[in-house]
Amino acid sequence: MSLDLEGLRALAVPGPTKIVLCSLDGLGGLPRPETGKSELETARIPNLHTLAARSACGLIRHVGPGITPGSGPGHLGLFGYDPLRYPVGRGVLEALGIDFELRPGDLAARGNFCTVDAEGRITDRRAGRVSTEVSVGLCERLKRITLPGVEVIVEPVKEHRFVLVLRGPGLAGPLSETDPQATGQPPLRVQALGPAAERTAGLVNQFVDAARPLLADARPANMILLRGFDQRPDMPRFPEIFGVKAAAIAAYPMYRGLARLVGMEVLKTGSTFADEVATLREHWAGYDFFFLHYKDTDKAGEDGDFDAKVAALERWDALLPDILALKPDVLVVSGDHATPAVLAGHGWQPVPALLASAYCGADPVARFTERDCLAGSLGLAPAHHLMPLAMANALRFTKYGA
Amino acid sequence: MSLDLEGLRALAVPGPTKIVLCSLDGLGGLPRPETGKSELETARIPNLHTLAARSACGLIRHVGPGITPGSGPGHLGLFGYDPLRYPVGRGVLEALGIDFELRPGDLAARGNFCTVDAEGRITDRRAGRVSTEVSVGLCERLKRITLPGVEVIVEPVKEHRFVLVLRGPGLAGPLSETDPQATGQPPLRVQALGPAAERTAGLVNQFVDAARPLLADARPANMILLRGFDQRPDMPRFPEIFGVKAAAIAAYPMYRGLARLVGMEVLKTGSTFADEVATLREHWAGYDFFFLHYKDTDKAGEDGDFDAKVAALERWDALLPDILALKPDVLVVSGDHATPAVLAGHGWQPVPALLASAYCGADPVARFTERDCLAGSLGLAPAHHLMPLAMANALRFTKYGA
Repeated sequence: MSLDLEGLRALAVPGPTKIVLCSLDGLGGLPRPETGKSELETARIPNLHTLAARSACGLIRHVGPGITPGSGPGHLGLFGYDPLRYPVGRGVLEALGIDFELRPGDLAARGNFCTVDAEGRITDRRAGRVSTEVSVGLCERLKRITLPGVEVIVEPVKEHRFVLVLRGPGLAGPLSETDPQATGQPPLRVQALGPAAERTAGLVNQFVDAARPLLADARPANMILLRGFDQRPDMPRFPEIFGVKAAAIAAYPMYRGLARLVGMEVLKTGSTFADEVATLREHWAGYDFFFLHYKDTDKAGEDGDFDAKVAALERWDALLPDILALKPDVLVVSGDHATPAVLAGHGWQPVPALLASAYCGADPVARFTERDCLAGSLGLAPAHHLMPLAMANALRFTKYGA
Repeated sequence: MSLDLEGLRALAVPGPTKIVLCSLDGLGGLPRPETGKSELETARIPNLHTLAARSACGLIRHVGPGITPGSGPGHLGLFGYDPLRYPVGRGVLEALGIDFELRPGDLAARGNFCTVDAEGRITDRRAGRVSTEVSVGLCERLKRITLPGVEVIVEPVKEHRFVLVLRGPGLAGPLSETDPQATGQPPLRVQALGPAAERTAGLVNQFVDAARPLLADARPANMILLRGFDQRPDMPRFPEIFGVKAAAIAAYPMYRGLARLVGMEVLKTGSTFADEVATLREHWAGYDFFFLHYKDTDKAGEDGDFDAKVAALERWDALLPDILALKPDVLVVSGDHATPAVLAGHGWQPVPALLASAYCGADPVARFTERDCLAGSLGLAPAHHLMPLAMANALRFTKYGA
């Protein structure tokens, strides 16, 4: 039960206050069996605990019970968008992940180089994970393909993966995929899954037909597979919904892309969290909302490295005083999903969250851990409820009804 | 906020893990005024308390705040179906309750024998609760009735109650009921409540007209009342939604019927819970999901017998180690509704729930009671959120969004 984004837009009012939203990627964890303590319970994070003691704390869930969020839905939730209402396709996410600026109407797909035999049957769906270097060269070949009435853009991602973007008027999905998800079969033809997609399906099939001879001598990467065709979703713009001048600070391209997708400005920054905090300080006067992303927690969790995740939390904690020194009116600290080291991947577990402001009220939580946050005043809330709470605490919402 | 069943289906992936869902019918209770302790707080259930200490605990609600669930909606909730989205009619439940295998298209109704006076006015809506024995004989008479184009099936239930099923092409509701819910009036004619139901209404009225002379000498059971006309709902099948081979073990027919309704296989078992656990052990290798039903808790609660409910909980607890010995990857223990002995009937109170797995996380709950579960990490959740959580904990869901 909550207002939708249009309902929130009607309540937003200007103000002199500043909000900082910190996403510690993959923040939530699970107890390590040997100690019974989670990453947050193990780490020395005195600044976070002190902040928790004067914050409203709780746990957030991004998609639903038992559902493990990807980075896209996870961050949309933090930005105030119900991820079930605003789905973002895989092709779009792949393009965002390399900082590619998708325009409205662009059709994006995830590409793989693959290996086919003399009869055209797939023998390796990932072409032996060819090196990025090889992939870059093969993308250059694919860029030579021309199609009637649309621009063809091919960008390498990593190893065997690339992004295909078609740009031009009248492109439309939905389209079926060419990847049969199995070896021993030839790639599938793309089918239009709706009447508006007929021409686009034809163009994609022309692209695939043109790719085959261009790659014939490039074994193991002698063919391509295309999946997740999608157009940039038409989303309400974050700065307009919440009436804020919003900036994103993120060392990793995917998170810059997600912020750009909802209309935030992306600030140039360095590769470390200290660089990000320096960027925040530098641009403090210029914006009233900042999204600050931290990748190291997720990376360590994905690697299944409990100690590295603990260390990543401690590094973040050490820079928290620098953020607090700027005196944000509202500071939110949470994450886009759990990445428990014991799972070595994203998890479905609710993620700790805190909101500090002069008006956040008191709760009994004095430590920022999964277990402690259970007793917090934010309860177990959908992630997209945090932004309205942040706006209210920034005194940037007027009342609903007279 | 949650995915619907089709959304969940898209995330389900196969795995080697096993899930056991235990329903202690009518599990939840209320404090006995003399002691201030509920049935769960009174019972010696050391195994459940020990399990709770290493589980995620909470309370579940099946339909909504203040709503007392029947057994149908209560179990659909446990199976992952939002009961408000998947209503099951009373005629259908009555047929399920005698283990009658309803086919798609069958029209089922709850029947009552009743008493009418010489003018045909009802004097007793339940015919003095005639014995089941008498009822069985009268059902034999009703089975003689033939109708054009449809098969007539009449099955006794208990005392004055029976089930009428019409089977054949083109049957359709909705239909009004013949029971005026009051004495002093004659039974009502059945009315079609939609254009597709006209022929079916006519057939039912023919059945009622044919029943009258057949029962004329059978006072007090000299007439019938028909209610709750319904067809088997078209539901997504549980094994397909969750990608599991699912078995139901239940000594009572109603629960076998509910499991069959969602497509579970029903295993033959004995009449005690020890028999059910033996059946579980015997079939352990053959399935990856088991629904295990226990009736005694509800029965004692319905009788208003607090001590008997305590004893029923203790009997269940004594067999818990046998279930744990099978090492299920995910074990869920909860119930379909509360049946507090002080109410001597179903209650609306949230029902304790626990979920044990290697990835369930830590919470402070160390006793499996209504009061302790309040502080648990499952929170106060809709019952149909348990299945997605069980699937996640069994590592049988892939992530949502990239």
